[in-house]
Amino acid sequence: MPVEAIDDPFVNGEIVGRVLDIKDLGGGVFEVRIALAAATIGGDAGQLINMLFGNTSIHDDVMLHDVELPAEFVRAFEGPRHGIETLRRRVGAQRRALTASALKPQGLPAHALAALAIALARGGIDYVKDDHGLADQAYSPFAARIEAIATALRRHGSLTRYVPSLSGDLDSMRGQIAAARNVGIDTVMVAPMIAGLSNVHRLVREHPGIAFLAHPSLAGSRIAPPLLFGKVFRMLGADAIVFPNHGGRFGYSPETCRALAAAARADWHGLHATQPVPAGGMTLDRVGEMLDFYGADIMLLIGGALLQAR
Amino acid sequence: MPVEAIDDPFVNGEIVGRVLDIKDLGGGVFEVRIALAAATIGGDAGQLINMLFGNTSIHDDVMLHDVELPAEFVRAFEGPRHGIETLRRRVGAQRRALTASALKPQGLPAHALAALAIALARGGIDYVKDDHGLADQAYSPFAARIEAIATALRRHGSLTRYVPSLSGDLDSMRGQIAAARNVGIDTVMVAPMIAGLSNVHRLVREHPGIAFLAHPSLAGSRIAPPLLFGKVFRMLGADAIVFPNHGGRFGYSPETCRALAAAARADWHGLHATQPVPAGGMTLDRVGEMLDFYGADIMLLIGGALLQAR
Repeated sequence: MPVEAIDDPFVNGEIVGRVLDIKDLGGGVFEVRIALAAATIGGDAGQLINMLFGNTSIHDDVMLHDVELPAEFVRAFEGPRHGIETLRRRVGAQRRALTASALKPQGLPAHALAALAIALARGGIDYVKDDHGLADQAYSPFAARIEAIATALRRHGSLTRYVPSLSGDLDSMRGQIAAARNVGIDTVMVAPMIAGLSNVHRLVREHPGIAFLAHPSLAGSRIAPPLLFGKVFRMLGADAIVFPNHGGRFGYSPETCRALAAAARADWHGLHATQPVPAGGMTLDRVGEMLDFYGADIMLLIGGALLQAR
Repeated sequence: MPVEAIDDPFVNGEIVGRVLDIKDLGGGVFEVRIALAAATIGGDAGQLINMLFGNTSIHDDVMLHDVELPAEFVRAFEGPRHGIETLRRRVGAQRRALTASALKPQGLPAHALAALAIALARGGIDYVKDDHGLADQAYSPFAARIEAIATALRRHGSLTRYVPSLSGDLDSMRGQIAAARNVGIDTVMVAPMIAGLSNVHRLVREHPGIAFLAHPSLAGSRIAPPLLFGKVFRMLGADAIVFPNHGGRFGYSPETCRALAAAARADWHGLHATQPVPAGGMTLDRVGEMLDFYGADIMLLIGGALLQAR
């Protein structure tokens, strides 16, 4: 909007964004601080990202580095309903790092995934999640899959939690949560950038007893990971956030991972912390190093390497 | 998933992705063709993008260039319910390019936006859309805004269509469409990358009488625009697609724009064409050149420049 075409004093004084500072970082990179009015967002998570990076996302040479949000604005989103303590308590792990693995490959029928879940539970894994590629496919429909896996784990008698992956539109995801609750499941996974931020926020508000694990699918963008995972997904209510650890299959640097984990666990306007879940090609021989790097308030997610080790 | 850990012959034979070809394009760039099983998607738009580019989006040096989809797969999505002909007929423009403008700045109250809509209708604009920054803010709530604007345009008696912008979760958007229909509105705008692809697809299926204009907010990514706008948004049911024209405020090249418009209007498994809406800092003196470039089957969207010209 050309500013010279704005006559309204309220709009000019209260709504138009203001460039607060431009700092030359060298090498053609500039840090620009822009003030936006909180009133432009109205409490909706989709509108938050629309205002922060909607059209700007189309500029290849701009990245969204960070956002400072007013305390009351952040609190209104409410954030994680459970956080680290509940995730620990549910699986009876008071102090150590939690462990997680993934059910895959997709294409296996429900009973084969259930057998895999039991094997992982026998091995002592706390959280066994669907691979994020599992949706509602004909070879393993959501309803049959959760029934088979939840029944198998119940018979096995461990505290291991099965974490199914939600997919589809808001109504589909609601139906999946209802079906999951019916078989005793209390943790689900969702990819906020695919589901839409507003829909994830709605699911969290509608299901306060459910713990939500956020998955990074489609989260690659020019939004800095510490902001997207550690602030935005946390605001929506992610109790834990899966992200690609440095040195795995993806390109996050140690600095990015450290900043992401710090944001996820920082004191932030009274919101519960979100538990970091470093993942993406992790192996058993990295466990010690990961604990040194992140401390014990994480969930160690090792998928393919455990399956490969049979 | 390590392939050597897959024992199941169905998964190995039918589900595991296959690299079909790797071509060295020079300069360190490679074109890689990968075959995925359609069964992995199950007809859900979110799962489509999850399979095509979910985790891969996190690799900074990979872009999703194009996808070839089976005819029956594309047809199952159904695509635009109306397309170019309906958009033309509704505003009584049989052959010429359609015209559009945007209501802004945000921060104005409903009656001021209604006055602006009337001015644009008097000037002969066919489609007057909300700026994509307009959501459900306190200074211009969605319900009050559409009531004021629809009433004003009805009294004015023109065929000019008001196109409100949807926001929030699926239920919010449904409520907004219901409210819009109540005041006679038959066209809405939605940003699929914010709303979530599956939710947009659901809205289209639930509201066959409504025409949908797709907005590119948050669509900046390493998904090639001709694919994202011309195929994916079209499959979901976008009757028209707003995109940043070359030479405006954004960086799309003429080649990208040409390919995008070609994809949007190509014969494609019987789906209606999607009308290109080149935008993003367009001015009146570019109209002739844009018509030469795209032909008349477009919607000319000029926002700020018309407002600046008063």
